[in-house]
Amino acid sequence: MTRTELFELIQKKKSFLCVGLDSDPDKIPVHLKNTDDPVFEFNKRIIDRTHPYAIAYKPNLAFYESNGSAGWISLEKTINYLKKFDVFTIADAKRGDIGNTSKLYAKAFFEQLDFDAVTVAPYMGIDSVSPFLEYQNKWVILLALTSNKGASDFQFHDLKGTSNRLFEEVLIKSQEWGNSDNMMYVVGATQANMLADIRKIIPEHFLLVPGVGAQGGSLEEVAKFGLNNKCGLIVNSSRGIIFASKEIDFAEVASHEAGKIQELMEMILNENKLL
Amino acid sequence: MTRTELFELIQKKKSFLCVGLDSDPDKIPVHLKNTDDPVFEFNKRIIDRTHPYAIAYKPNLAFYESNGSAGWISLEKTINYLKKFDVFTIADAKRGDIGNTSKLYAKAFFEQLDFDAVTVAPYMGIDSVSPFLEYQNKWVILLALTSNKGASDFQFHDLKGTSNRLFEEVLIKSQEWGNSDNMMYVVGATQANMLADIRKIIPEHFLLVPGVGAQGGSLEEVAKFGLNNKCGLIVNSSRGIIFASKEIDFAEVASHEAGKIQELMEMILNENKLL
Repeated sequence: MTRTELFELIQKKKSFLCVGLDSDPDKIPVHLKNTDDPVFEFNKRIIDRTHPYAIAYKPNLAFYESNGSAGWISLEKTINYLKKFDVFTIADAKRGDIGNTSKLYAKAFFEQLDFDAVTVAPYMGIDSVSPFLEYQNKWVILLALTSNKGASDFQFHDLKGTSNRLFEEVLIKSQEWGNSDNMMYVVGATQANMLADIRKIIPEHFLLVPGVGAQGGSLEEVAKFGLNNKCGLIVNSSRGIIFASKEIDFAEVASHEAGKIQELMEMILNENKLL
Repeated sequence: MTRTELFELIQKKKSFLCVGLDSDPDKIPVHLKNTDDPVFEFNKRIIDRTHPYAIAYKPNLAFYESNGSAGWISLEKTINYLKKFDVFTIADAKRGDIGNTSKLYAKAFFEQLDFDAVTVAPYMGIDSVSPFLEYQNKWVILLALTSNKGASDFQFHDLKGTSNRLFEEVLIKSQEWGNSDNMMYVVGATQANMLADIRKIIPEHFLLVPGVGAQGGSLEEVAKFGLNNKCGLIVNSSRGIIFASKEIDFAEVASHEAGKIQELMEMILNENKLL
C-alpha cells in the first residue's frame, strides 16, 4: 500500500485507528477456548466487528510466539483473513539483525506473511533496516520514541557533537536509508508534547502511535501535535478495544469501543479539513 | 544452567565454541530437500557431528521464521533435540518490547521453547529486559557492540554528561537490572581491541562473540582481550562451520571445522591456565 492509498483509506473510513491484536492466549474469552484455534477465532470475530472503524491491524508477535508454532499458525490465519478487508497490516515484531539476517526477517514478514509493514529496532543501524526497504510498497516502522518506562534509559540521552537526543538521531540518521514513502516511526503517545519537536524533523512521515488508552495517551493531544496534511498518524489501541469485555459479548463491545474512537477521529479529521 | 556449570562445561569440552544454526532453508544441501523437515534434518546431522567440540548452539530465529510456522516447527524440534546433549542453548532472537509484551517473549523462549538464553535488544530499556531476568538459571544476552556495518550508526555515539559511548552506557546501565549470573552481552569480534575497554566495565560477565570467521574476527585477538578467570567467552561461528560444505559430506566437514576451532580453543585455555 502506498502513502497516497493509505491516506485515501483514512479518508474513506474517516478514521486513523489501528487495532492492536495483542491476543494473549490466556485472556481469550472462555467460550472460545474449546475451538481448534482460540486465538484465530478471537481475532476473526474482533476483525469482523471492528473493520468498519479501523484502517489498520497490528498483531504483536510476542502474543503469538508465546504459543510456539501453534501461535505462528494463528498468526498466518490472521494475516490471511485480514487480506479480505481493506486495511493496512502491521507485524509488530521489533526485529533487527545484521544485514544478511535481516533479509530473512524481511522475507518472513513480507513474503511468508504478506504484511504491509513491520516494526524494526534501530540499535544495529543501517544494514539491520535496509533489507526491509528493498520491497516495493512495503514499510519499515522504526522504533524512535517508545511509550514505556525504559524509554528513558537510552532514548533521551543527549549526544555529544549534536543537539540531538538519541531518538532524534534515529529520526535524522534514518532519513539516509529511506523516505516518507517507505518508512514510518513508532512514537509513544505518552510523549505527545514531543510530537511537535518530532514533526520539525519529519514533517511528512506517518507515525505509528501506540499507547493511547491503556498506556495513558490522549488522542486530542496526539492529533494536535502530530497531524500533517496527509493525516500522518496511525493511532493504535489494543487492550482498550479487544479486551474491553472478556465475556461472550467481547466482539460487540470491541466494536462499540472502536466506533467511539472512530467518531472522535472523524471529528478531528473534519476540524483539520482532512476529509 | 548456572555460570559455574557453564565454566565446568567449557573445562570438560576444552572449548568455548558456539555453533550458530543459521540454517537458511535455501542453503540446505540438495540431498536433504526431499525429507519432511530439511532444516531439522540438517540441524540434527550438524549437532550429531559437532557436539563433541561445541559447548553451545545458537539458532538465529530469522532463518526459521523465513519458513513461517513450518520454520517454528523446525525450531521446536531443534531445541528438543539439543536437550539430549550437554550444551548451552541460545535463541538468537534479538527481541525487546514494553514490559507486558516482553513477558510473553520470555514465555516463548524459556517455557514454550526451553532455551537457556535469549538475545535481547536494549533500545527500549529496563522493562523490555527485566521480564526475562525473572526466570531462574536463564540468561539474557543483551546486544551491546555488534559486528555489522550499522554498528557505527548509533552504538559509538558519545553521550553528553558521561565519558561513555552508547554501547558502554548499555553495559553500565544494565548492571542495575541484572548481574553476571543472569546476563551476558553480545560483543562483535570485529571490535576485538574494544574488548579491553569492555572488560574494565564488566570483568566478570560472559560475552557472546559472533563474527569470528565469516565476519573477519580473530579468535586469538578475542581471547587476548576478552578472557577472564571463568573463561567468560562464548565464541560463535555459523556459516564457517555449518555451510563449510554444501555437499553430501556437509556434516563431516562441519565436524572437521568445529574440531579445528576446538583445538585452538584448547590451546588458548591451556595457555591461560583455565583447564
